[in-house]
Amino acid sequence: MNFDPNVKIGVLGGGQLGRMMIQSAIDFNLEIKVMDPDPNAPCRSIAHEFVNGNIQDYDQVLDFGASCDMITIEMENVNIKALEELERQGKKVYPQPHALKIIKDKGIQKQFYLEHDIPTSEFALTGSKEDIKDLAHLLPGVHKLRTGGYDGRGVQIIRTGKEISKGFDKPALIEKFVNYDKEISVIVGRNERGETAMYPVVELEYHPEANLVEFLFSPSSIDEGLRIKARELAKKIISSLNMVGLLAVEMFTTKNGQVIVNECAPRTHNSGHHTIESNVTSQFEQHIRAILNLPLGGTAAKSPSVMINLLGEEGHSGLAQYKGLDKALQIEGAHVHLYGKKLTKPFRKMGHVTLIGDHLGDLKAVARSLKTSIKTKA
Amino acid sequence: MNFDPNVKIGVLGGGQLGRMMIQSAIDFNLEIKVMDPDPNAPCRSIAHEFVNGNIQDYDQVLDFGASCDMITIEMENVNIKALEELERQGKKVYPQPHALKIIKDKGIQKQFYLEHDIPTSEFALTGSKEDIKDLAHLLPGVHKLRTGGYDGRGVQIIRTGKEISKGFDKPALIEKFVNYDKEISVIVGRNERGETAMYPVVELEYHPEANLVEFLFSPSSIDEGLRIKARELAKKIISSLNMVGLLAVEMFTTKNGQVIVNECAPRTHNSGHHTIESNVTSQFEQHIRAILNLPLGGTAAKSPSVMINLLGEEGHSGLAQYKGLDKALQIEGAHVHLYGKKLTKPFRKMGHVTLIGDHLGDLKAVARSLKTSIKTKA
Repeated sequence: MNFDPNVKIGVLGGGQLGRMMIQSAIDFNLEIKVMDPDPNAPCRSIAHEFVNGNIQDYDQVLDFGASCDMITIEMENVNIKALEELERQGKKVYPQPHALKIIKDKGIQKQFYLEHDIPTSEFALTGSKEDIKDLAHLLPGVHKLRTGGYDGRGVQIIRTGKEISKGFDKPALIEKFVNYDKEISVIVGRNERGETAMYPVVELEYHPEANLVEFLFSPSSIDEGLRIKARELAKKIISSLNMVGLLAVEMFTTKNGQVIVNECAPRTHNSGHHTIESNVTSQFEQHIRAILNLPLGGTAAKSPSVMINLLGEEGHSGLAQYKGLDKALQIEGAHVHLYGKKLTKPFRKMGHVTLIGDHLGDLKAVARSLKTSIKTKA
Repeated sequence: MNFDPNVKIGVLGGGQLGRMMIQSAIDFNLEIKVMDPDPNAPCRSIAHEFVNGNIQDYDQVLDFGASCDMITIEMENVNIKALEELERQGKKVYPQPHALKIIKDKGIQKQFYLEHDIPTSEFALTGSKEDIKDLAHLLPGVHKLRTGGYDGRGVQIIRTGKEISKGFDKPALIEKFVNYDKEISVIVGRNERGETAMYPVVELEYHPEANLVEFLFSPSSIDEGLRIKARELAKKIISSLNMVGLLAVEMFTTKNGQVIVNECAPRTHNSGHHTIESNVTSQFEQHIRAILNLPLGGTAAKSPSVMINLLGEEGHSGLAQYKGLDKALQIEGAHVHLYGKKLTKPFRKMGHVTLIGDHLGDLKAVARSLKTSIKTKA
């Protein structure tokens, strides 16, 4: 194995995940070419080359891929047929199209869990919201679009039969609510040689309305038995998928000692942003190591950490302005990450702040106070 | 004080220091425009705008500065007259031209130390190497060009009168050798409000031939009394210069408890690269915080660290190829930084590796072994 930095990596998607990956790729002197439909995407100014294009279009993805040495993604809603064709032509595509196909469609993803004895919530596929009428045993539940949902969109809570009108009239699935205790996540990396490396389990706290991660706590407060189960599940999923790259597995824990897989993402993930400062290797460097078949980096946490997502303020749409960031800058061990998005809208992910320190309890208190001070307005 | 990320920062010089600063500036969503005479400078592909120009030319620097909201530098060999004019026009220039003027000319810099009672080695200015004949009391000594020397160039050791022919026929200074014990460095940051923040003292080990830092060890092994003296000196110098930005102060310690200032640099510095991984705030973020008048970040070391400079191999000039980097990638806690220089030449700074871990002794052993494995060849 020899490290060749002269490889041009094509990235489908140019958002914050791509942006933070580029920051890391600079250290390896890799050439990064990005395609995104938004001409002002966060990667635009720092990619070696930026193509303003449609990542769901077969021909555009094929052309883009042909100009790169290998292809990766920062969102799964891409044209998989084009990636299959590129793979057929001998191009390395990591994560592989076969894994993307399973994960991109949340219906197929759930089916995959059943087939591989991976604990997950009860569910049924729906073609329209009317279908939920016959699925009363799955209520209260969550109605999710099978494809295209992200950042809290494409997800609707249906508590009773009276709320069925909130559902989707597109291919979707209804999942029975899990009476969970904690929401956790494990990120696992895997390279071509099949080596895996797992990050410690983290705990997520969601924004009550936006269905988006608001706080992340590392390490999680769950007991050792649950931790082991969670990490085993993450490893089992990435190995069963025979996937190269990073996989973020979101799970629920229950009071009676169960770990249930909610869903996974075949890429760097919001639940790994804290690793930039708090772990030996950041998830962004790990992704690069995995897809280049390099040795995977150490995943241990160097210290407790809390991550706060900076979401666009409700009622504000337009040119982004940040209030109260100076508060964060005054805190020893606070790290501000802005994603370079020109426009804010309600609950849009605009940046994050990571706090590192010796005591998780102290960090949590600081984070909750800081969250009320920082606002992204228009 | 409010944090305004909509500021366009002009950087004179586009080498590795600028490159690592941009990696950090991405987190603050700052717009960075760079000027460098090398069309393939390391900053080229990641700066928002790159101007291929002469940073020593009055008109070019003036034009460049006019297109930015504020100006900073990543090397001191720039046209200071143009910076003075920009400052006169009301543009913020940090570090300020008055400080650059003192530091850029090593003769004036030494004079400044004398005037401010800052311990430094005995010296004399020379116009040509012939002048050294009358300065036998300063031998063995180091002959240094007053301006333009960098990365070990513009420095010549003159042991006896017989070696005078090695000296320079340009404005230079001859410094009497210090019988030193350790070479150390302290980086101090200062913002507009005069707040300062000092990094812990680090120890440097030089390459015997190239007169370049080969290894950096943090923390230094010197005793507490010397540490306090060193940090006081660094703070005194930046305050006496009334400088805003970062100042790296290289010093010698002696067996009899003295701390002697060797020279300083008004910018981020090779002796601060380890801070990216090992300290609460990296020197690159600290530079940004200082020049934007933000609160300075914490400087504490989170763990011991060693930095290894990756220098171009002797006898190799041409397209750079890296051998043995996989060795570094296999070490838990090793971080590789390549500077993206296309061409290597003997002793050119091509990158660095930082090792972090619990025990400095172990890190040193790993570093010395690693150094023999990694080669930059053509």
